[in-house]
Amino acid sequence: MKQSLLLIPTLREAPADAEVISHKLMLRAGMIRKTAAGVYTFLPLALRTLEKIERIIREEMVRDEAQEVLLPMVMPAELWQETGRWDFYGKELLRFKDRHDRDFCLGPTHEEAVTDLVRQNVSSYRQLPLNLFQIQTKFRDEIRPRFGLMRGREFIMKDGYSFDVDEEAAKKTYWRMYEAYKRIFARCGLVFRPVEAMTGAIGGTLSHEFQVLAKSGEDPILTCTQCDYAANVEKAALKTVAGMPQAAVGGKFQKVATPGKTSVEDVSRLLQKTPAQLLKIVLFETEKGPVAGLVRGDHEIVPAKLQQAFSASKLEMATPATIEKLGSAVGFTGPIGLKIPIYADAAVAAMSDFIAGSNERDFHLTGVELSDFKVEAFVDLRRAMPGDPCPACTGGVYEEHRGIEVGHVFFLGTKYSESMKANFLDEKGQERITVMGCYGIGVSRTAAAAIEQNHDDNGIIWPYPIAPFQFHLVSLNVGDAAVMEASRQLYQKLSAAGVEVLWDDRDESPGVKFKDSDLLGIPYRLVVGAKGLKEGLVEVKTRRDGALEKIPVEKAADRALELHRRAVPAS
Amino acid sequence: MKQSLLLIPTLREAPADAEVISHKLMLRAGMIRKTAAGVYTFLPLALRTLEKIERIIREEMVRDEAQEVLLPMVMPAELWQETGRWDFYGKELLRFKDRHDRDFCLGPTHEEAVTDLVRQNVSSYRQLPLNLFQIQTKFRDEIRPRFGLMRGREFIMKDGYSFDVDEEAAKKTYWRMYEAYKRIFARCGLVFRPVEAMTGAIGGTLSHEFQVLAKSGEDPILTCTQCDYAANVEKAALKTVAGMPQAAVGGKFQKVATPGKTSVEDVSRLLQKTPAQLLKIVLFETEKGPVAGLVRGDHEIVPAKLQQAFSASKLEMATPATIEKLGSAVGFTGPIGLKIPIYADAAVAAMSDFIAGSNERDFHLTGVELSDFKVEAFVDLRRAMPGDPCPACTGGVYEEHRGIEVGHVFFLGTKYSESMKANFLDEKGQERITVMGCYGIGVSRTAAAAIEQNHDDNGIIWPYPIAPFQFHLVSLNVGDAAVMEASRQLYQKLSAAGVEVLWDDRDESPGVKFKDSDLLGIPYRLVVGAKGLKEGLVEVKTRRDGALEKIPVEKAADRALELHRRAVPAS
Repeated sequence: MKQSLLLIPTLREAPADAEVISHKLMLRAGMIRKTAAGVYTFLPLALRTLEKIERIIREEMVRDEAQEVLLPMVMPAELWQETGRWDFYGKELLRFKDRHDRDFCLGPTHEEAVTDLVRQNVSSYRQLPLNLFQIQTKFRDEIRPRFGLMRGREFIMKDGYSFDVDEEAAKKTYWRMYEAYKRIFARCGLVFRPVEAMTGAIGGTLSHEFQVLAKSGEDPILTCTQCDYAANVEKAALKTVAGMPQAAVGGKFQKVATPGKTSVEDVSRLLQKTPAQLLKIVLFETEKGPVAGLVRGDHEIVPAKLQQAFSASKLEMATPATIEKLGSAVGFTGPIGLKIPIYADAAVAAMSDFIAGSNERDFHLTGVELSDFKVEAFVDLRRAMPGDPCPACTGGVYEEHRGIEVGHVFFLGTKYSESMKANFLDEKGQERITVMGCYGIGVSRTAAAAIEQNHDDNGIIWPYPIAPFQFHLVSLNVGDAAVMEASRQLYQKLSAAGVEVLWDDRDESPGVKFKDSDLLGIPYRLVVGAKGLKEGLVEVKTRRDGALEKIPVEKAADRALELHRRAVPAS
Repeated sequence: MKQSLLLIPTLREAPADAEVISHKLMLRAGMIRKTAAGVYTFLPLALRTLEKIERIIREEMVRDEAQEVLLPMVMPAELWQETGRWDFYGKELLRFKDRHDRDFCLGPTHEEAVTDLVRQNVSSYRQLPLNLFQIQTKFRDEIRPRFGLMRGREFIMKDGYSFDVDEEAAKKTYWRMYEAYKRIFARCGLVFRPVEAMTGAIGGTLSHEFQVLAKSGEDPILTCTQCDYAANVEKAALKTVAGMPQAAVGGKFQKVATPGKTSVEDVSRLLQKTPAQLLKIVLFETEKGPVAGLVRGDHEIVPAKLQQAFSASKLEMATPATIEKLGSAVGFTGPIGLKIPIYADAAVAAMSDFIAGSNERDFHLTGVELSDFKVEAFVDLRRAMPGDPCPACTGGVYEEHRGIEVGHVFFLGTKYSESMKANFLDEKGQERITVMGCYGIGVSRTAAAAIEQNHDDNGIIWPYPIAPFQFHLVSLNVGDAAVMEASRQLYQKLSAAGVEVLWDDRDESPGVKFKDSDLLGIPYRLVVGAKGLKEGLVEVKTRRDGALEKIPVEKAADRALELHRRAVPAS
């Protein structure tokens, strides 16, 4: 493709509102433009990369006998009311009325629509398993869209849903999709880790995120130094087995004045103790009422772990008003006298003679024992940290990485199929509920994550499989007939061999051309210039490492084809 | 692909609300399912056909150096306010507010979004021409969605927009796209006609519709019996040259009682005249005030022709209230004394001594002459009819067909580029306005139109290029090992040669299998059954004409490949 014909409006500087690398570089490389907050137009280069990611996804899905469908983007409220998500889903679900005043929403996800399809068309075990996927533009009305394609409102997603006859079959499908996802991201040329994840509001019990590793990643993830175990920080389990709590006799605590001191740091300094000698308490509200979580003063509580322990479907930090209604002073809350369920982290079980809040303004308690209050259960509530022992092996410890979530697989169980009655008759003619899984890939997000992982100060460095073009043929001195003829021959030979070549035929200075070429990040660059051509030479430059070769012009096409064959694995 | 693995929920009967053939057959063949009024889910077979249409479109667009982009489906109101269409576009434009109470709409078309993109990124003539297209799900909130994919609310469309430096270049682009569209529909295997069309609310001055011919088509179109001229009925021009109007002296008219007679038929019968001796008048309201159109009593007025003559951008039939406010009695309106602009059809110029309404209830006027009232202009206002002479040749006459509009090309001129200031600097550094064209194809509608044109009582008859599969391999007696082995070999040979085979491996009766096969409409059917196999024979049946061949099993694959090669034109 001739660059002069393509809309690639490169920019020297990124607009001020672009915060992250991928956002800046996609704007600068003329791949995307903002139409509204979180809503982007994809230009030709971006579309080529998206199309490549989509093709890889389709091939791997079909390999696993998943079938492509296309569910509507506009969905009637009735479907979402059936599962309760019409009320439960936050404002991210964009709702509106049609001209007849009927309620609809723009789909951010399609569990309801696909379950409706299946219950209407599947009635027998002979029609199962079914594994349906789609690639579609979705909309999620994020309160603060930012980071370009990393957290947009309108985005392209692959979402898939499986239906099996029982849990065993469904788990097999889950692990097949897990393997398919590994193949997909590997084929995209990305460095990634599948990590265990919490299932959150979408429900279910088994879940993995696929995280592209990048320093700029939003999600901290923990991986074992020794084995394959990896998890996001929320999920990362801890080895600590909950022992019996300290049996020390209680009732010895004393009130001490800690005026204005509400943080662990301030209180421990005032009372000349270490943070580990303090008890930290956090109060939450759930649909089952308030609940408290306890961790050691030097630990962080993970709300999702408490949510799971308490079996709540919604859990939010308690407001000051709620805390006061419970008879406690904000900043001085403690477990003694608190009349709500209390869960403690396993590490708390080993504490004795510690400091806790008194529930009275400006006072804490010292000499507190576990027998001074009631704990529902000692469970894993704290955030794992680098150096904590790995729960899956002996000797390994956690190390922290940053990741960008590009895929997510969930084992859903019967959460949706039960509420929407997606039933079937088994071999014996008995009615049973289908068991579901769901599987998502952020397609546009994957493109952005690839850039977060692969760039330098000069621009993007595309992994070969998802680069918008594979070779960038840069003709210097476009007024020189010999240059243009040599370029044309190279272009034709490579194109005829199936190599995707962007031919920079623009009448621009070498400086502008090289700067643009670095910015666009096409893996290999062929430079044809008057000076080199006089010596019969053409330059081949590798974008990633900057390696430069001078090749006789008559051998340039062969060398390029060799590089191409090396980069494209036989499929 | 094994049929047992695919979701193809065929139905014996179509749901009662399916009115047209394509809607019925797509439901029955398990291609689509309704999710809400006018909102459909596409199942795997439908998606395969759509994907084929999209591939043909992409190839032909790229051949003409059009570039694929993807504009947002959710657009901010500001863009539509700039062109005035936020107010002007009817309720088909689905509007809503986001969580921050800002106005947005779902895109039914993208002139605003693409013009915004171009004005922000194009500043020089060196960046032109630009021809951008996208394939996207669109939404139009039809008041009465029906006919399945023929008039849905959510639908898949290819829309393209060209930007040129001047009108001459833009018209060249227009005609290139016209030719590309002809190639696209021909490659889809459809019988179609490009016809001249009115430009309507979208604006512009030159426009063609691409009509797939089908008895069930909604749009009447007129084609010449002799030359290539074709137009939709609204646009179809008439040869009649407006002569000088009859010069008869006026003032001789007389009032006659016609109590309760308001139709041309009733009045002419009562007064013993032919309809051609009556003057028909129709009143309209426009943004420039009311206007009247006159045609001979036996002719039909075309509102769009009057709209063009009066240069109105909106034209609607006048309400009874408006007619009475103009001092006329509904059903008895006439031109004499009517104080609004009056346009007359060219055929009216030849009338003399005719009957017209009196504007007074229950009375008409006889002996009316053209000199009795003022006519702004005599123009082409009437609907052309079969038998009317063709305006483009000598000797040809119109004949009527029914068509389904699947594509539309418009020469837009500067309608959008001017209001949105999509300017550029020309060679001399002078600011000029880009000249635009726009080009649409209803992708999902094309699939439906293909069925309207190609079906019989038993089901669909797919044109080869857009059939979801090319061969239907039907194995009878799936419990018979020899049948399954012969089927498997055929399946593998054909698949390896790139033929798309749907293999009916289901344990169903021959009756069910043949009925489903006819319904799905895959062009060729290979039948492998125990009985035939005993004689060493396999059946090859052509879906369109029912032609049946019995082929020795060892030659079946070769025969199938021969049919395949014949059906796939070398590209």
